[in-house]
Amino acid sequence: MNLVFRAIYESGQTSRIEIARHTHLTRTTVSDMVAELIESGLVEEIGTSVSNGGKPSILLQMVADSRYLIGLNLAQDKFIGAVINLRGEIKQVYEVPSENQDGELALQRVYELLDRLVYSQWKPLIGIGIGTPGLVNARNGVVIQAVNLAWKNLPLARLIRERFSLPVSVLNDSQATAIGEFVYGGHSSEGNMVVVNVRHGVGAGILINGRLFQGDGSGAGEIGHVVVEENGLLCRCGKRGCLETLTSLSAVVRRSGLPDLDHVEEAFCTGDPHIRQIIQDAGAHLGSALAYLVGILNIHEIILTGEMTRFGEPWLNAVQQAMQRSAFHLLAQNTHLRMGNLDYQACILGASSFMLLDGYSLLFLNER
Amino acid sequence: MNLVFRAIYESGQTSRIEIARHTHLTRTTVSDMVAELIESGLVEEIGTSVSNGGKPSILLQMVADSRYLIGLNLAQDKFIGAVINLRGEIKQVYEVPSENQDGELALQRVYELLDRLVYSQWKPLIGIGIGTPGLVNARNGVVIQAVNLAWKNLPLARLIRERFSLPVSVLNDSQATAIGEFVYGGHSSEGNMVVVNVRHGVGAGILINGRLFQGDGSGAGEIGHVVVEENGLLCRCGKRGCLETLTSLSAVVRRSGLPDLDHVEEAFCTGDPHIRQIIQDAGAHLGSALAYLVGILNIHEIILTGEMTRFGEPWLNAVQQAMQRSAFHLLAQNTHLRMGNLDYQACILGASSFMLLDGYSLLFLNER
Repeated sequence: MNLVFRAIYESGQTSRIEIARHTHLTRTTVSDMVAELIESGLVEEIGTSVSNGGKPSILLQMVADSRYLIGLNLAQDKFIGAVINLRGEIKQVYEVPSENQDGELALQRVYELLDRLVYSQWKPLIGIGIGTPGLVNARNGVVIQAVNLAWKNLPLARLIRERFSLPVSVLNDSQATAIGEFVYGGHSSEGNMVVVNVRHGVGAGILINGRLFQGDGSGAGEIGHVVVEENGLLCRCGKRGCLETLTSLSAVVRRSGLPDLDHVEEAFCTGDPHIRQIIQDAGAHLGSALAYLVGILNIHEIILTGEMTRFGEPWLNAVQQAMQRSAFHLLAQNTHLRMGNLDYQACILGASSFMLLDGYSLLFLNER
Repeated sequence: MNLVFRAIYESGQTSRIEIARHTHLTRTTVSDMVAELIESGLVEEIGTSVSNGGKPSILLQMVADSRYLIGLNLAQDKFIGAVINLRGEIKQVYEVPSENQDGELALQRVYELLDRLVYSQWKPLIGIGIGTPGLVNARNGVVIQAVNLAWKNLPLARLIRERFSLPVSVLNDSQATAIGEFVYGGHSSEGNMVVVNVRHGVGAGILINGRLFQGDGSGAGEIGHVVVEENGLLCRCGKRGCLETLTSLSAVVRRSGLPDLDHVEEAFCTGDPHIRQIIQDAGAHLGSALAYLVGILNIHEIILTGEMTRFGEPWLNAVQQAMQRSAFHLLAQNTHLRMGNLDYQACILGASSFMLLDGYSLLFLNER
């Protein structure tokens, strides 16, 4: 069933004949499945197409508000969640504070957030997608390690599934952000894209042929803990000189000597040369690392997201210049660096899309 | 047609029913196509399978010697070519000297090599696959730049196709080597693998879900020209401090002060501590770079190939230790570094496999 729904979902508008051609299913099978989808309210007929020569065929489209999803972003300074329809339109957003909350406390906060979302007016709900910091086993939804939240081998998907009786998928927040920017960010792409997310950590999400690539251990894109400076600063992972000790938000705040990001941003905006230099240095370290990304993947579209993008063109230029300087020029000359468009919503939208398209084929089950 | 042949090719032995299930084609269509394949000699029936319950079905397999391919490796100190059957068995190998040959001269040498292979006893030939150093546009077979051969925007595929009237595919030698090791190297893999090839240059080939990933510009894996040492030695690409200036064969020979690789190897084998240190340093630089590969792809199987593997365990251990030191430990702990098994043949086998499976569906055309 999912195959036919997916064909309709992905095409926007299509006909039964097109679906049969696309899925290699027989027309009879497609017709039966479409009838079921219409019956369940997921799909509707919206008129006829005028094709050249052949007889006109009835167009089908998904009913965007026939089902709802929940997406969570646990990688901000607070936990943010939203109810989303099948077209990625955000219906409602809630947030709960998460500062200084970790371990069991942080988990309780996630439950609180979900209580509000799950018992809201938006029904039927078909699943929950979660973007969390840290390394995740995407197959079973276990958070292997999330240092900031002090989670280790936490079976997050199972706990939430049991509590809310909904399908749940969990993935790394940078990977979720990448899906969100890819699907809803309005970037041009032929199917491949890398999204590099720079906040307190540095992580990337990689899309290959329109699908998230997670590698063998779900950790593809985890570039923040590559050692780039021997005997550098101590990183929260326990090593010294990791990429994130030089390029992240925390690195910038620490080097500035100022109390927080807002102060850094203020000084930056007034043109403080010391702060400008710090931002440029952070960008340059990132750009040098991106040279490997260019060489390894040769993906032409690289999108930058996360709070470091607040520093705008000066930061982007520093990243760009260092990348061009350090990368193989025949590859770098065709590589485009751009800013993301969706801010924290990318993670929410991506986590819920992943739930819908890759995580489960339980679309018609577990509704509430 | 290719779909059915491919199903038979990939399965070893299979039945018409299995093929229908696998390809989503109807049984009638499959039967018709199989009949044509048998007619053309590509496929044969080899008895019946005893299934549990159902009626026995006739097993099919590809006839390995029904067609032949040519594979070329242009990345050694000489040009090497071979005639190969459909199972990757090498029937004949020829080589021509290529030292001090570049530009038009090098191309003439390629023609010479192909003359011998194309007009040999092995017929019918269905195509030529070429692994060449340098950056290649795999879509049109143009060698964008191959510094050692002084080729720039050379339409190699077109030239050879016109001369020999056979389908031709061209790809980077490290990418070809990766395919060869993946298909014929006897490594365990669930479909993802990275092969890092270290000779005068350093390049990688990346397999994702059993297919070569080439990126948007066919250059995926071109890691040799990432700058790792600011103001380092001048590289043949024109920049300073590229990875290959620190890790390649040429780097090792230069640092040793000895005339060539054979002398370095001799000194290494006698335990010369200076030479041992040079080899270990080269391995350590490679290992640090591999930390990015681990973080970006999180692919568990990394295979090392190329002449640097001559230095065996001491070199491998240096690569391994530096990789573990520089990579995110949660990813690196599950990453296995191994040596390749096929030497220069990997490139030949990979280039011809690529020709067969990815490059063209002209399997039944252009035969001679």
